[in-house]
Amino acid sequence: MKKYVFLDLSRLNAPYLDEMKAAACRVIDSGRYIGGKEVEDFENELAAYVGTRYAVGVSNGLDALRLIFRAYKILGRLHEGDYVALPANTYIASALAVTDNGLNIVAIRNDENYNLDSKRLSECKDVDIKAVMPVHLYGRTCWDSILQQTKDNAIIVEDNAQGIGATTADGRKTGSLGHAAAISFYPTKNLGALGDAGAVTTDDEEIAAIVRALANYGSDRRYHNIYQGFNCRLDPIQAAMLRVKLRHIDEENARRQAVADVYCSHIENKGIILPANDGRSVWHQFVVGCVDRDGFRRYLAENGVETDVNYPLPFFNQPCYSATDIAVSDVDNKVTAELCDSIVSLPIAHTTLQEAHEISEIINRYKAS
Amino acid sequence: MKKYVFLDLSRLNAPYLDEMKAAACRVIDSGRYIGGKEVEDFENELAAYVGTRYAVGVSNGLDALRLIFRAYKILGRLHEGDYVALPANTYIASALAVTDNGLNIVAIRNDENYNLDSKRLSECKDVDIKAVMPVHLYGRTCWDSILQQTKDNAIIVEDNAQGIGATTADGRKTGSLGHAAAISFYPTKNLGALGDAGAVTTDDEEIAAIVRALANYGSDRRYHNIYQGFNCRLDPIQAAMLRVKLRHIDEENARRQAVADVYCSHIENKGIILPANDGRSVWHQFVVGCVDRDGFRRYLAENGVETDVNYPLPFFNQPCYSATDIAVSDVDNKVTAELCDSIVSLPIAHTTLQEAHEISEIINRYKAS
Repeated sequence: MKKYVFLDLSRLNAPYLDEMKAAACRVIDSGRYIGGKEVEDFENELAAYVGTRYAVGVSNGLDALRLIFRAYKILGRLHEGDYVALPANTYIASALAVTDNGLNIVAIRNDENYNLDSKRLSECKDVDIKAVMPVHLYGRTCWDSILQQTKDNAIIVEDNAQGIGATTADGRKTGSLGHAAAISFYPTKNLGALGDAGAVTTDDEEIAAIVRALANYGSDRRYHNIYQGFNCRLDPIQAAMLRVKLRHIDEENARRQAVADVYCSHIENKGIILPANDGRSVWHQFVVGCVDRDGFRRYLAENGVETDVNYPLPFFNQPCYSATDIAVSDVDNKVTAELCDSIVSLPIAHTTLQEAHEISEIINRYKAS
Repeated sequence: MKKYVFLDLSRLNAPYLDEMKAAACRVIDSGRYIGGKEVEDFENELAAYVGTRYAVGVSNGLDALRLIFRAYKILGRLHEGDYVALPANTYIASALAVTDNGLNIVAIRNDENYNLDSKRLSECKDVDIKAVMPVHLYGRTCWDSILQQTKDNAIIVEDNAQGIGATTADGRKTGSLGHAAAISFYPTKNLGALGDAGAVTTDDEEIAAIVRALANYGSDRRYHNIYQGFNCRLDPIQAAMLRVKLRHIDEENARRQAVADVYCSHIENKGIILPANDGRSVWHQFVVGCVDRDGFRRYLAENGVETDVNYPLPFFNQPCYSATDIAVSDVDNKVTAELCDSIVSLPIAHTTLQEAHEISEIINRYKAS
């Protein structure tokens, strides 16, 4: 039986392996292993790609979010206990960045695209929401006129961990929409490093400078610490890997779009709910809804199709959070928890169009019980 | 004029460059870029070297310390506001790990070896010290009978950022002396990665498990988060670099000892105070005392000898800390501040014995004004 692998990083990186090895050896030979030109060049290339004035390389996507919120606290624009709205359906990193900074989570129920429902956000009047975190979940742009207007009254921190290259209807890229944004270069991402890496993108000079200092022990110059900081630096060797792949990110995203197009036009099964296909998502995940998730995944596995679930348990139901950790919730927990029980991610990372056709046919033969 | 470079990482890593490039390419080819066998093998090799049951690879030395204190809080063995004693003379990371965890710093004045003065520690009765952080500063073991006894009543967290391979009089290695220890593999360290990296060593199974979970989003298994965690993982590519160099750490340390022997036996200048040479330090830095620090450094620079100062400003005088951030202080701030004004680090990282002789002669010709 033919196997449809969900994600094999060797296969995903195969086109770039030789170039990445040469880049790694260049860094090893350079003698510069913290900061320096490799990191600066990547930051400039990333800022140019995203369309922001600044990009600051950091250790990973969670740290990018953590440091953005910390920077707003340092600037006095956020204070301990302030309310931050984020979608109830997201990876736990979104929530950890908020609670690590002593801020309160306001969980907003997702819309039909699994993203933050901005109408519910605007109806949330119980507390004074100081910051909003749209998450470009699964690579889908989370932006609309309500969020654009909200930007005048609240700090908008984009969780762009999964969205690099996704665009708004008027062609702006995720990571340049809010006041500051966090990107993850986790190896499985559309633009993945060969280890942990991340970045902050912003037009705000102060935020960029504070994040950069916080990531380097809070120092503005060597052995001079103006903030109680951390070590959250981007390694030059990872910057070098990312520079190789950043040049190809649009091809990578276009390839994923082509696979999504096959799925969206060929899967026809009344038991399966397809995602909207507006041509602006970068399809970090291709997530479908179904009624009997375990049965559907079992059927696919029996037919050689590996799947994943992103994510099986909503953050507010994780053991690390108690009910009181979510300050105000428009979640109706059952809705998002049921969502999490109904979603399946299909292979897309290195799926060929031929494979996408075959998987679509397998899915079309599925009979929900 | 001959130049005596303080630290050139290319020169320091020269013997290992080919092997490290091969190791980097092996990881790039492997398709495994988070965790996995490369990290596990390094952890096992490191634990065997240090002499602990567990080693957990993490992102850097500061995160190693941060996660140890966080783990003790999770276990209920430390609580918000508890007092932690640490030497007044140390790199700021030691302090940041304490304050980041909402713990209070008790700063203890240094002894004549620039390390924590354990007698002053035992005389500090103003507060209930729950944890003590000996710092093996400059590579010198900070351990004695008082600290050994203290271990029965307080948690001892070693800051072993600079001490890998240093030993006690009875032959035990730093990193295995307290209840848990943090190592840094910052590129300039005796065992340096080619980017940021660190580790926690401990015999405590619970601490090891909690640190490992905290470093991986607080998860005990995929998508199951039992703690509000972080992303503090050791990259496999750095683990691979470290595995190459760990095999040679004893040679590296012996080479530094030989240079220190030359300095200690050949420098004779009544204006210069030499460090004690007990044969058990690993000489991460070779620090001498002097009266007119600026004048001495200028003289050395004029004679081609690059120097550094570790560290020019004590952490409690850094702008990020106010006087009230140091809960209780036996520091007599002036003493440690004056110390920081009187120390100079001589080249040692890749200094040859011939160069050490020449530098000694240059120093012997120095006349303090």
